Amino acid sequence: MPDKAIILSSGGIDSTTAMAIAKSEGKDIYSLSFRYGQRHSIELEAAVKIAKSLGAKAHKIIDIDLRQFGGSALTDDIPVPKHDILEDIKKDDIPITYVPARNTIFLSYAMAWAEILKASFIYIGVTAVDYSGYPDCRPKFIKAFEKMANLATKTGIKKETILKIETPLIHLSKAGIIKTGIQLGVDYSLTISCYDPDEKGSSCGFCDSCLHRKKGFAEAGVKDPTPYYTADSASA
Amino acid sequence: MPDKAIILSSGGIDSTTAMAIAKSEGKDIYSLSFRYGQRHSIELEAAVKIAKSLGAKAHKIIDIDLRQFGGSALTDDIPVPKHDILEDIKKDDIPITYVPARNTIFLSYAMAWAEILKASFIYIGVTAVDYSGYPDCRPKFIKAFEKMANLATKTGIKKETILKIETPLIHLSKAGIIKTGIQLGVDYSLTISCYDPDEKGSSCGFCDSCLHRKKGFAEAGVKDPTPYYTADSASA
Repeated sequence: MPDKAIILSSGGIDSTTAMAIAKSEGKDIYSLSFRYGQRHSIELEAAVKIAKSLGAKAHKIIDIDLRQFGGSALTDDIPVPKHDILEDIKKDDIPITYVPARNTIFLSYAMAWAEILKASFIYIGVTAVDYSGYPDCRPKFIKAFEKMANLATKTGIKKETILKIETPLIHLSKAGIIKTGIQLGVDYSLTISCYDPDEKGSSCGFCDSCLHRKKGFAEAGVKDPTPYYTADSASA
Repeated sequence: MPDKAIILSSGGIDSTTAMAIAKSEGKDIYSLSFRYGQRHSIELEAAVKIAKSLGAKAHKIIDIDLRQFGGSALTDDIPVPKHDILEDIKKDDIPITYVPARNTIFLSYAMAWAEILKASFIYIGVTAVDYSGYPDCRPKFIKAFEKMANLATKTGIKKETILKIETPLIHLSKAGIIKTGIQLGVDYSLTISCYDPDEKGSSCGFCDSCLHRKKGFAEAGVKDPTPYYTADSASA
């Protein structure tokens, strides 16, 4: 019987590629997404289509309300910055789009599901290259989470299963991720990266996430399949 | 200015005592409870009253839906066992009332709130004595979580705050916890332990949690203020 793997899926390029890699490694796919006070549900619709396209055994969407605590552009009502947040990172700031404890909360839910499914793998599409400003994307965070997880569960006492957190993209650039996904047959037209899409699911082309996406396709030498709602964006 | 502390509050004896200890140590109290698919909300009503009685600055209730994953007596529709689950533990089983990843998920939300409040302390009323069958109550789990938390947050990069997970009850028996709380003026009539209370908030007297509660009061030499709905329970 194939190993089971939980994949944290946001509907974006990175988590979709991580899912395709898990599949290529022979795992049965259990896709997990979160509704966490985003302004739009377009990325969840994308996550559903992606899970289906990659043959997931199940897809669950968990509601979590981080807005109760406030504290980030993605969940509060402060405007999404229209510039490259890597500039913030160079100034030793944490990007304003950072959501407190987000990956920790996501991985905790994945842990719960993994224990029930007796799954030994959780895949998360973090990368320490393009987004090193996020503390919870660093390899040493992932290692510390994995250690904690194996102490937290029945696993840790009964040694039935050892839980592994897989980060297949950790040392890849956006272009490297896209090249890997293309080789695995990923349809990136299903994915969405924009922090500020319109109601049809088209992307702004100018938010931090769109800028990285466009740069990634350009550097990978792959045609960007993203619909942008800003006229001059495709050539930006 | 006093230090801020998040207290995980279930409305029971342990978390209430942990809250009283945090207060006695001069902390400003921020109480955090969870609605996680329990059969009853009586423990949440208790948590609200307790936070008020101990002068909490804020009290938040977070909805989390562990029922989506299934897997435990407290969230599924399997009957609550009416016997001492320490018997299960002696047989090297995990109690059926164990909820997968529960403390990990609770602490992850506490972490998010702590980061936003710039709080340096999270108090959790776990004890390694009476409930050692739960893997996520063990001191080495708590230490591993603390380490992970300090890598997960802005804290971990900017060193503005070091997050500490305080477990003041870790080496106390139920009787020791009750004696400590009584010294600090805790009103245990506000707390509830029962897994199976009636609609008025009275306790069954026979579930694992009631058995431990009664034993604790007896051993502490303190009158048990709990209303039981089973006639012979008070003398059990």
